[in-house]
Order: sequence, then C-alpha cells, then structure tokens
Amino acid sequence: MLLSTIPTNKSISCCGRTNYGSSQSKPNSAHAIDFQAKVFPKENVITSPKQDDDKTVTPAEKIPQHLNWESRKFDWVYDTFGGKLRQGGLVFQQNFSIRSYDLGPDGKATIGCLMERLLETSVQHCRSLGLYAGGLGSTPEMTKRGLVWVMCKLQTVVEKYPSWAEVIQIDTCTGASGNNGLFRDWIVRDYSTGQILIRATGLLMLMHMKTRKFSKVTAEITDELRSALMDSDPLIDINNAKLGRLDIDARNYFQTSVAKPGWSDLDVNQHVSSAKYIDWVFKSIPFSVLETHELSSMTMEYRSECRRDSAVQSLTAVARDGTGDSTHNQGVEFDHLLRLQTGSKVLRARTVWKPICDGFFSTLKIPATNGCT
Amino acid sequence: MLLSTIPTNKSISCCGRTNYGSSQSKPNSAHAIDFQAKVFPKENVITSPKQDDDKTVTPAEKIPQHLNWESRKFDWVYDTFGGKLRQGGLVFQQNFSIRSYDLGPDGKATIGCLMERLLETSVQHCRSLGLYAGGLGSTPEMTKRGLVWVMCKLQTVVEKYPSWAEVIQIDTCTGASGNNGLFRDWIVRDYSTGQILIRATGLLMLMHMKTRKFSKVTAEITDELRSALMDSDPLIDINNAKLGRLDIDARNYFQTSVAKPGWSDLDVNQHVSSAKYIDWVFKSIPFSVLETHELSSMTMEYRSECRRDSAVQSLTAVARDGTGDSTHNQGVEFDHLLRLQTGSKVLRARTVWKPICDGFFSTLKIPATNGCT
Repeated sequence: MLLSTIPTNKSISCCGRTNYGSSQSKPNSAHAIDFQAKVFPKENVITSPKQDDDKTVTPAEKIPQHLNWESRKFDWVYDTFGGKLRQGGLVFQQNFSIRSYDLGPDGKATIGCLMERLLETSVQHCRSLGLYAGGLGSTPEMTKRGLVWVMCKLQTVVEKYPSWAEVIQIDTCTGASGNNGLFRDWIVRDYSTGQILIRATGLLMLMHMKTRKFSKVTAEITDELRSALMDSDPLIDINNAKLGRLDIDARNYFQTSVAKPGWSDLDVNQHVSSAKYIDWVFKSIPFSVLETHELSSMTMEYRSECRRDSAVQSLTAVARDGTGDSTHNQGVEFDHLLRLQTGSKVLRARTVWKPICDGFFSTLKIPATNGCT
Repeated sequence: MLLSTIPTNKSISCCGRTNYGSSQSKPNSAHAIDFQAKVFPKENVITSPKQDDDKTVTPAEKIPQHLNWESRKFDWVYDTFGGKLRQGGLVFQQNFSIRSYDLGPDGKATIGCLMERLLETSVQHCRSLGLYAGGLGSTPEMTKRGLVWVMCKLQTVVEKYPSWAEVIQIDTCTGASGNNGLFRDWIVRDYSTGQILIRATGLLMLMHMKTRKFSKVTAEITDELRSALMDSDPLIDINNAKLGRLDIDARNYFQTSVAKPGWSDLDVNQHVSSAKYIDWVFKSIPFSVLETHELSSMTMEYRSECRRDSAVQSLTAVARDGTGDSTHNQGVEFDHLLRLQTGSKVLRARTVWKPICDGFFSTLKIPATNGCT
C-alpha cells in the first residue's frame, strides 16, 4: 500500500495546522498528549443509536431510503464496506472481532494485527467518501496531477491489548497538518466497556507517482478535501515524535541476516506491507525482551519503498535499558533500523517496552549486542 | 496450536468410518469427490431465517429467552463468540469479511488468510460445544487422560478466491474417521451468491500430551463425542489424498536458507502457526510460478512440531510441469518439504497450480532447480 511507503530521505516538516475544514479556527495549541482528556470532539461524533458489531454488509433493504448517498451531510450514512460514516464523513467507525489467528505467543492481539485494522479503517473511510479510485484518499485533482498520499510517520500508543473473542471499535478521522500534509487519528476502544486501548496518529504527505517526490497541496486539492477534514489537532504530536538515531558505526546493535521478502510479505501494490515491517523490527529484538515485556509505544518513520527484490536487514540498538530507573519498572527503549543491502534506509523506528508485570523486570537480561539474532 | 501439529513420523491410517453419531449407518461408499453434488446433508443444516453478516457479539437481549444454553438440541443456538450452531451443534457457521490486509499481490485473499479462518471456525465450533477447556475438541475423559486432538493431514481445494470487501460464509462439521480419528470438513461460500469457493477436509488423531504418541479412542470418549459428530463421509478422501515424495538425494529442488521462526510466527501455544507453514512452503516456489499461477489444491501432512528454536528449511521439487499436457493449461504440481536443520521432517505437502488465464501459461519458465530462491 502506498500508505506504507515514503519515497525519499527528505526530512519531514509539516508542523502547524491549516484549517481546511472550518472557518472557526481553534488556537494552535501545544501538542501535549493528554490521553485521558483527548478524544474526538463530541460535536463531530454522534453517539450510535444502537451498538453494532462487526457489520460488514448492510443489505440494501436496511439502508434508510431517505439517505442521500451523494451527500456527506447526513449524520449517519451506512457504508456497504464495513463501517459507518459519522457527521459528514468526518469520523469513520468500524468494529473488529479478535480471532484466534490475531493472537501472539502471549495470548493477546499482536501489534501487527492491530496495525492492519487501523489501515483497513482508513481504506474504508476513504472509500466511503469516494476518495479512492485514484489511490487512497485521492481527490479528482490529485488523480489528474498524478499525486497520491503516502504515510511518512506513524506513532501508536498502546494502553492495553485486546484478547481473543473481544470486539474492538476503531474510530478514525483525518485533518490538515500544516500546508502540505494530513494527519490521520485512530482511537481503538474495547467495544463492550468503551475503554480506550490504543491511540495512533499517522502523518501523510503528497507524492508524485512518477517522480516519487513530495508535492505541495494546491488550492484545488484543499477545496476538494475541505469537507472531509476535522478541525482539530492530531491526537499525538506526530511531527515532534522522538526518534533516536541508530549509530551503525558503533556496532552495538542486534541484527538479522539480510533477507528478501517472500510472496506472502507483499500487498496488492507489490510493496512489503506495513505489518511486515513490524515483524522485521521484532526479528532483531532479543527473545528475552519479547518474553518479559509488552510493546507500549512505537514510532515509525518510513524512508523508502521496499519491494520484492529488496534485500532487507533489521537492526536494533538499546536506547534505554531501564536499569537506571529507581523503580526498575520503567521498561526499555530501542532504536530500530530496516535497511536495504545497498545501505538505503527503509524504516527508522523507536519502540518502548514495559515489563509485563512488576517483579518480572529484574529477570530481564538483554544479551550482548552485535550478534545475529 | 495443537491442531497444527503432529508428534511423530508414524504413518497415518484411520480409513473407514465409524458411525458414532447415528444408528442409521450409510454405506461406506468410495470417497470420490463429487463437488457439484456433495454438500452438508440437508437434514443437518437448517436454512438461516435471515442472512447475517460477520456477527460477532450477539447482545444478550437478542438471544431468544426460550433457548436453553445447556442443551445442544435446539435448531438454533446463538453463540457469543462469532457464529451459529445448527441442529444440535453438528454444523457451525460463521461469516468473515475479506479485508485489505487479507489480500495478496494478486488482489485476492491469500490461502494463508483463508486457512486461518477455517481454523477459527473449528475453534469456535468446539468452544460452542463446550469441548474446549482441556484443548480444542477435548472431552472430559480426554482431559482426564491427558489426550488432545492434533491435525495430521489437511487438504484444501480452491475453486475461486474471494476479493476485497466480499463476505465469505464458512460451514464446518466433524465426523468419525475410522476408529481412532476424526475428520473435519469446511465449505467456504460467497455469502452474497452462495457459490462454493473452497472445500477442505482435515484429519485429526488423538495424542498423549506428555508422551506425544498417538492413542486409541476409548468407548468413553466415543460416548462423549457421539452427539457432536456428523454421520457422513468427509468431503475429501483425506486418507487417500496423494502426497508425492521429495527426493532429497536427487537434489533437483528449490530451497531456502535455514531460518528460525520469529516472534510473530508463533501462536498462543508457542508453536509455529499453520498459516506460517504455508508462507514457508511458498518461499521455495519460484516467483515466476506465483506470478502466473493460482493455487488450486494443497495437501499438507504435518509430521512434527515446530517451535521457536527450530531452524527450518523449505524445499520444493517439480512433480508435474504441465509441458506434456496437450492443452498447456493443466497447470503444474509441486512436492514440498519443510525440514529441521537436524533433518527431521516438519511438513510434507503437494500443491497444484493452475494458470491464472489461458495464454499466460506459455510464458511460464520454471528456473533451474537446486538454487536458493
């Protein structure tokens, strides 16, 4: 998916916020993450009149006849592809069941499985809005100019992982990030309790399909997108999300051997899928960490595309081993790098891990680095 | 999952059929696969009064109050875990939506994704029947004796792969296979048209958890299972399913390098998941075949467990290259072997591939074997 790729190594800068969507601009406040308070603004989300489960096909007879499919102004538009649009398409909601195959060795849904579901909701949201034919989120003007949105950066913060047979509800929306980018927010909730499980924000930039270079958002594209964008700041201050630099020269990292993607690693665009990147990142993290810790936060910066003939290596360096923490329960942090055999960077990432339970952490022994895991 | 493993290299023999489920035995007919005619017997499947989609949680208020959850005798028992039991639990039905992340490079649902959904329905079926706590399909007597069911062999025949946003309906049931085994059947349909897409049959044997040896089905276990088993032959004659032998000495095969499973390859039982086996099999099939052909049939024989410290290699040999076919459209067949570094066999498999479209096949060039793909 193009949403998982970024074409160049240019640094990303699209701070600030342009109010595409509203004439009533809010103050461009600091992006502190107040997770307890920050949810999608109530005025843009209408409470569901009934609780729906993982509803995928709404039979034609169930669609209220008075709904005008061409309009985005209705509070509720049933979507044939697996979710619901709310209030003019600003927020899209979709539920998913956690299946046996979604579980990892710890019996919880894996971060890869959850990430796939986040991306599915953005696909369905774009499709529901009619912004799909020329590429995910593509407007007619973008298609005319050969432009597509690409995901440059993504941060995911996990409070709690869902378990088997639980149902999660994902709300997603998008908004302007500066003059040349979009952000996309996701909130994942436990469907039965409403408890927030995961928050995530992605940063998208416009790219020329042919030149693979970034492009500015023109006034025409702005006009086309206006009604689809939330007038709010992103859930997470993705522009300033911290990413450490993995020092290759220091050689104090874990690494995998170089490997080419298999057929099953590729998505419909012949790219390596985003979820596969996570698998690769995990491959260079010692099992001793994976067994005793749980991923609580992950920031990924996509640097270049990865196709089927790309030979990739995964590197992981310890950014903070937690041993200096007075409580010994602050967890560990890693910097990660996926790079091609040519040396090109595919992905930079930072992961934060918390001990699975108190007392477990003291048993953690991160093995000596610079070994092939 | 234990369903994906088999503990020894003993040959499997549990032909014939024992009528656990009914006093009216049917003739033990030859197992020819008459796919046009063979469906689950009508007397055991009650037509759904309404078409349901991927319904996962049935809110309590929707469950008819007259239904007795302890009884398996009702025609309809709503299940809280994502499907429905039909007529005493003999057939379990569950729907799934095909999501963007289920698609492979050809834009169709992957065989791995479909296999995961087959296994999910068997998990949910067993759970709905209360045969779950001691292991998938475990009866109280089995739990007392430390016995579990393990999948030994699985054949899948694909007529058509579903695409994105389509909904598939999976029906599954189980029956006796000889005196010491069970079979499980699956039929996958296009939910909107009813067209049969996939048929599959798996063969399960009883295994001692501690000794990892096969065990006989005792009279007590037979009694416990009686009401849950269909009185029918399996959809596919799984006992006689053809599996070629990959001649390692001949060295005329494609092979991958030896690799250990990653964290994301493991399931909740710390085993490598069944779907991962398929990925590994695919890794030693030339891209030139995967690009021009579609898997139409796969038979897998599970030979030994694969855990996280297992270093595995995938080997593929051409069993039939199709060049002798007069029509040039009969496709190709491969024999596969997954083996541990120690030489132990993990999986034997046979796959059959048909050209994606007429005329495409002539462009197929299977490269010289004995290379690392």
